[in-house]
Amino acid sequence: MDVYEALYTTRAMRRVRPDPVPRDVQARILDAAIRAPSGGNSQSWRFMLIDDPAVKGQLGPLYRECMAELWAGPYRERIDRAKAAPHDPASVALLRVVASADYLAAHFEDVPLFLIAFSRGDPTGGSIFPAIWSAQLAARAEGVGSALTTVLGIFRAAQTLAILGVPPDRGWEMACCVSFGYPMGRWGVAVRKPAHEVAYRNAWGADVGLSIPEPLWTGE
Amino acid sequence: MDVYEALYTTRAMRRVRPDPVPRDVQARILDAAIRAPSGGNSQSWRFMLIDDPAVKGQLGPLYRECMAELWAGPYRERIDRAKAAPHDPASVALLRVVASADYLAAHFEDVPLFLIAFSRGDPTGGSIFPAIWSAQLAARAEGVGSALTTVLGIFRAAQTLAILGVPPDRGWEMACCVSFGYPMGRWGVAVRKPAHEVAYRNAWGADVGLSIPEPLWTGE
Repeated sequence: MDVYEALYTTRAMRRVRPDPVPRDVQARILDAAIRAPSGGNSQSWRFMLIDDPAVKGQLGPLYRECMAELWAGPYRERIDRAKAAPHDPASVALLRVVASADYLAAHFEDVPLFLIAFSRGDPTGGSIFPAIWSAQLAARAEGVGSALTTVLGIFRAAQTLAILGVPPDRGWEMACCVSFGYPMGRWGVAVRKPAHEVAYRNAWGADVGLSIPEPLWTGE
Repeated sequence: MDVYEALYTTRAMRRVRPDPVPRDVQARILDAAIRAPSGGNSQSWRFMLIDDPAVKGQLGPLYRECMAELWAGPYRERIDRAKAAPHDPASVALLRVVASADYLAAHFEDVPLFLIAFSRGDPTGGSIFPAIWSAQLAARAEGVGSALTTVLGIFRAAQTLAILGVPPDRGWEMACCVSFGYPMGRWGVAVRKPAHEVAYRNAWGADVGLSIPEPLWTGE
C-alpha cells in the first residue's frame, strides 16, 4: 500500500468483526511499531497484546465506566448542545463519534485484539505515540482497523495496571489502549478542517501561504 | 512509496542541507498531518511552519540552552557512563545520538523548515503526535528528513510561545518542534531492540508468542 493511502485512510475504526488477527499480522504490526524514533532513541516502551477473553472480561466493565465518566464530564455540554441542534453538521459529526465510541464500549469483549502501550520518562507522549501510530498504519496496510483510546489510563489507571500485572514501582505509565480488528465498514478519506485553517507561518495567526481546500490524495 | 518502507526508514535525520522545502511539498506534509485521528475528532491543533531567518535566529539560542540543560540534567549520568566505556555498543549508540543532536543544535538556523505543533485538551499527547508522525512519514515519502524534539516546550515554553506570538490565555500548549530538510546521509532501517523483547501477551512479563529476530521489512 502507498504511504499516502495509509495516511489518508487510517481513521478510527471502532466497529470490527470478532475474527482473530493472525499472528503473522500481529508480528508485522509490532515490528513496524518498534522502528519509530523515541527521545534519545531510548525505546522506553512496552507493548502488551491482549486476546485472552478472561482479561478482556475484566477490562470491559472498567472501560464502560471510563466512557460513562467521559460523557458525563468533559463531553457533557458539547453532547447536550449537539442533541439540541441535531441537524447542525458539527452536531451530526459529534453524535456519530459518540455512537461509534459507545458501540466499541458495548462490544469491548468481542474485539479480537488490543494493544496496550506503556512508556516511562516521556512527559509529552512524543516518544510513544509515533510507535503507536506506526502500529495503526501497519494494521491499515494489513486490512486491520484500529482505534486509539486513552480513557483507561486517565480514569482507571491503577485498576488497569493491577489487572495486567504491571509492577507499580518501576515508572511504567499506560499511554493508551488500541483496539484492532477487521472492520465492518469501509475505509475512506477522513473529512477534516483544511490544513490552511489550522496552520500559520512564522507567527500565530499569520497566513500559512498554502491553500488546500480539497484532500491532496483521494485515491483516484 | 510503500507504507512499510516509510515506517521502517523514517528515523531522526538531524543533518540536513539548507536547500528550501518547496511549498507544494509543505502542502502535502500538512495535508497528510491533518488526516490523523484525534480524541473525539476534536482536531484541537495548530501547526506553525517556520522558515523566516529572523524567527529561527531567535529560537536557535534558546534551543541551544535547552540542549545544554538536557545534557546536564536527565542525560548526564548516561553520557558519563558512555564516555567511560566508549567501545560498548550501547555507548556508541548513545554518543552517536548526542553528536547528531549537537549537530542540529549548532546548525539550527540553517535548517530550512521547522514545524511547531500546538494542542489543547490533550493530557497524554495521543491527539497530536499521530498527526506529527504522519507529517514526518509524508516528508519521508517526499525525500525530506525530519527530527522531532520536545526540549523547547519542556525547558523554554514561555519564551518560545512569546517569540511565536501564541496567545497565553487560550490553553494552547507546545507539543513539539520538528525540523525538516533534505538529508545529508542515507535512509536506512533503524536498529532497535526486537519486538518480542519489549512486548508481552495478556500479562506483564508473559511471552508475546512472536519471535522477530530480524526486521520483517528490509527493502530487498
